[in-house]
Amino acid sequence: MDDIRINPIGVIHSPFKELAGMPIQPVGARDVAGQVVVAPPFADGLADMDGFSHIILIYFFHRTGPFQPKVKPFLDNALRGLFATRAPSRPNPIGLSVVRLISVEENVLRVQGIDVLDGTPLLDIKPYVARFDAVMTDAEGWLTQTAGQANFRKADSRFTDD
Amino acid sequence: MDDIRINPIGVIHSPFKELAGMPIQPVGARDVAGQVVVAPPFADGLADMDGFSHIILIYFFHRTGPFQPKVKPFLDNALRGLFATRAPSRPNPIGLSVVRLISVEENVLRVQGIDVLDGTPLLDIKPYVARFDAVMTDAEGWLTQTAGQANFRKADSRFTDD
Repeated sequence: MDDIRINPIGVIHSPFKELAGMPIQPVGARDVAGQVVVAPPFADGLADMDGFSHIILIYFFHRTGPFQPKVKPFLDNALRGLFATRAPSRPNPIGLSVVRLISVEENVLRVQGIDVLDGTPLLDIKPYVARFDAVMTDAEGWLTQTAGQANFRKADSRFTDD
Repeated sequence: MDDIRINPIGVIHSPFKELAGMPIQPVGARDVAGQVVVAPPFADGLADMDGFSHIILIYFFHRTGPFQPKVKPFLDNALRGLFATRAPSRPNPIGLSVVRLISVEENVLRVQGIDVLDGTPLLDIKPYVARFDAVMTDAEGWLTQTAGQANFRKADSRFTDD
């Protein structure tokens, strides 16, 4: 399969300058405000966005290290298959966060509950639609016991590129 | 910002050979079975995946046309800002579907509720974790009235590249 070229459409700003100490999911960052700045050529695509309370940010983990098939995630002490985790060191380091949308002013979205590093390249924004995106799960594997800890556990530097 | 190079890590198989007539969201494809074939170099990353009832597939809309800032989505007759829709004609045509995971056998995942075209390039797989991904929304903009129609409305060729 050929490679695909992706061009960031903007940048995400947050208070987090370093990976160590960051929340590991939006649930651990509920009160954290951020800004999503969309490059002007794409700003017209933000029409109608202000009607949604939540949006999905798709972004590039620009500071992560190389792909590892097994990782020790922030919420566990065992090695887990990478795809069974949300760790950033993925073959295609694409991240996904659901955040609350506070306002849209021209090409700038104010959001809340942001768990990404300041300067993260933005790839896409989608509206969060509960009927499509909120699923009742039957099983959450190794995260069954530990997902709740994402409310308070913080990241460290294990997946960084430096 | 520099461009980012993405390499598909596998391919998604579904019964849908053409965009016209396809379900437009997994909710309209609950009984549709598909296969996610992960390329062998990444298969070790699937460990622990079988514990999850639902997964997030991230893929490339390989048959979509060029970016349009305003689109008439399948669920509306008005033009809407692209980012306020799930239409595929995005600046970075990255798609996202939550599907039920039926089984994992070596590098092949059997899934249910698949709403993508056969042959779609796979970019990433993440476990669906309700505590991270299931959000109670307050507002869903133009989709408030029409999201339910995704249960039965089908796609047509409006966003295809041909």
